[in-house]
Amino acid sequence: MPKILPVSYENNFSYNIIIENNFNNLIKNINEIKSNCYQRVCIFSDDIVASHYLNEIKSIFEEKFNCVISYIIPNGENSKTLSNIEKLYEELITNHFDRHDLLVALGGGVVGDMTGFAAATYLRGIDFVQIPTTLLSQVDSSIGGKTGVDYLQYKNMVGAFYMPKLVYINVNTLQTLSDSQLQSGMGEAIKHGLIRNPSYYQWLQEHRDLVNSKDPDTLEHLVYENCCVKKAVVEEDPKEQGIRAHLNFGHTIGHAIEKLSDFRLYHGQCVALGMCAAGYLSWKRGLISELEYLTMEQVIDSFGLPTKLTIPMNPQDILQTTKSDKKMIGNHVKFILLESIGDAKIYSDVSDDEMLEAIASLLD
Amino acid sequence: MPKILPVSYENNFSYNIIIENNFNNLIKNINEIKSNCYQRVCIFSDDIVASHYLNEIKSIFEEKFNCVISYIIPNGENSKTLSNIEKLYEELITNHFDRHDLLVALGGGVVGDMTGFAAATYLRGIDFVQIPTTLLSQVDSSIGGKTGVDYLQYKNMVGAFYMPKLVYINVNTLQTLSDSQLQSGMGEAIKHGLIRNPSYYQWLQEHRDLVNSKDPDTLEHLVYENCCVKKAVVEEDPKEQGIRAHLNFGHTIGHAIEKLSDFRLYHGQCVALGMCAAGYLSWKRGLISELEYLTMEQVIDSFGLPTKLTIPMNPQDILQTTKSDKKMIGNHVKFILLESIGDAKIYSDVSDDEMLEAIASLLD
Repeated sequence: MPKILPVSYENNFSYNIIIENNFNNLIKNINEIKSNCYQRVCIFSDDIVASHYLNEIKSIFEEKFNCVISYIIPNGENSKTLSNIEKLYEELITNHFDRHDLLVALGGGVVGDMTGFAAATYLRGIDFVQIPTTLLSQVDSSIGGKTGVDYLQYKNMVGAFYMPKLVYINVNTLQTLSDSQLQSGMGEAIKHGLIRNPSYYQWLQEHRDLVNSKDPDTLEHLVYENCCVKKAVVEEDPKEQGIRAHLNFGHTIGHAIEKLSDFRLYHGQCVALGMCAAGYLSWKRGLISELEYLTMEQVIDSFGLPTKLTIPMNPQDILQTTKSDKKMIGNHVKFILLESIGDAKIYSDVSDDEMLEAIASLLD
Repeated sequence: MPKILPVSYENNFSYNIIIENNFNNLIKNINEIKSNCYQRVCIFSDDIVASHYLNEIKSIFEEKFNCVISYIIPNGENSKTLSNIEKLYEELITNHFDRHDLLVALGGGVVGDMTGFAAATYLRGIDFVQIPTTLLSQVDSSIGGKTGVDYLQYKNMVGAFYMPKLVYINVNTLQTLSDSQLQSGMGEAIKHGLIRNPSYYQWLQEHRDLVNSKDPDTLEHLVYENCCVKKAVVEEDPKEQGIRAHLNFGHTIGHAIEKLSDFRLYHGQCVALGMCAAGYLSWKRGLISELEYLTMEQVIDSFGLPTKLTIPMNPQDILQTTKSDKKMIGNHVKFILLESIGDAKIYSDVSDDEMLEAIASLLD
């Protein structure tokens, strides 16, 4: 049975998250978005995802729409540029796309963020649909309307808040993921438990082996629990003016490490390290117990994610990069700590010394 | 006495339009936008406007803010590019602008549209304020949140709907405009009467000489009446899903002429020609009388705007360019005609022959 999670925006219905284990109901759900249906469809994807799913998705759309085109970028963060968005604009212009047409994001976070940004800005906004195919995008990035591209060396510097019209999740696509891609999503999946849902965090610990062996029912439940957390947070604070910042738990130092590793460490690994550092600080401030901190490290480790830095990095460099991150207000880094397991809070008073100590805890 | 027009968006207060004859209350109005005030201000302008007003505006902001920077582009439509937006991003990054900072558009439509688009997309959205200095921007483009840049040969192809936090109009800036700049705004000012407000259209005819001689009180009233029309339309249909399209009266053929003239004809002149063509069609369809059509031409002419094409153009080229314009749905051009003077309506059934006849009426 599909699970349906309606997401509201400023107290009005905005879009559905559909959790399925196939693509059978994709068109049905797209038809339900609006009464007079779309004219043209452009599927935006990357080369790796396209090799698995593009033919299938294209056939599904071609049964219903006369004009179905696709635009494929190379897989990876390096593709997340304005110049690739411009190439997509040109493709849309060439094919006479107007406001009554539809963009489809088929892929992971990079593809979803870029498709959303193109949709937000082409002709001042056209509709788009998310078909996330990675664990990271299914549990996190496809929900909530954060769109954007990197600019110069800054992640997501250019973007918009722009809601999809549908998030259609086929959990079966997770079966084609590599271990490292699965682990990358597990960073966010652990985070959601730590910041918001202690009983799901408990469930996660108990289902470690089933998750790691990609048991279909377990993964479906995992995705569902994560979508519930993400939905609740973005409904409460769609534009990150308050509580949505909790989702940045592990990301402040994590982003700095990601940047300094030159993306040799992938996002989930960096978030894992960032969570360990933030967990360490939460313990040192007496918010959580040492046992809870050590258990956090064990949980992170049990999903194949690192708890210590495996490539050499200078703590001062990590500190400075953290402080130049866009989440900094004035001279203070906005830092998310755990009040308790399952409850996050924003702190603006974390000192450089504390941060250096937390970073040092990753080097042991 | 300043006039204040509050504009709502989806039934909530969105921003004020302030109509003044000086800049004395600018800071007061900016302080009222939000409780904890902005940190940094970037004034975006063009070289011509900057030569008149940048020093004054900069001093005003410097009294209140520690960091006030400016970014100046060359005047004109050719500057309205994504690459200029990218240069602005870099300026903002270099100066550590974050979501708590403010962009200020000081200038006409190009500056306002670009500032708004940069504000919509920098860090997924920061606040911006419009200080329109041309008649065109004061009566039209600064209100309603349409932002964007041109892309390839297409006007406003890339953009977003993104509301300003304040529109501060100092009508005194109109005194430094050239006649052609004033006329350019008069295109939209006549349009607003024709599509929505017959009594103001009547007032316009009676105050022609005072408008043309830039009588300050008359211009202030003119701006006020236009802001009332624009406010009413954008409140009713903020994202152009219906009635906002009425504002495109004169723009369908007008944009085609503007493009084909390679911007040798300025916007107001092209809108004037487009309105004549649409007026002609409205007459030919029996919606308005011949006298009303001829009076329209006289009114347009009395403000120094053209009613006939003064540079050679092929009617077929105008037709084809009109049809490739982004307002086209499927194979039908969405055309705005007058049901009566002061009342516009959208027509999707205007044939190529009718359009060619309307275009021919501009060639006599």
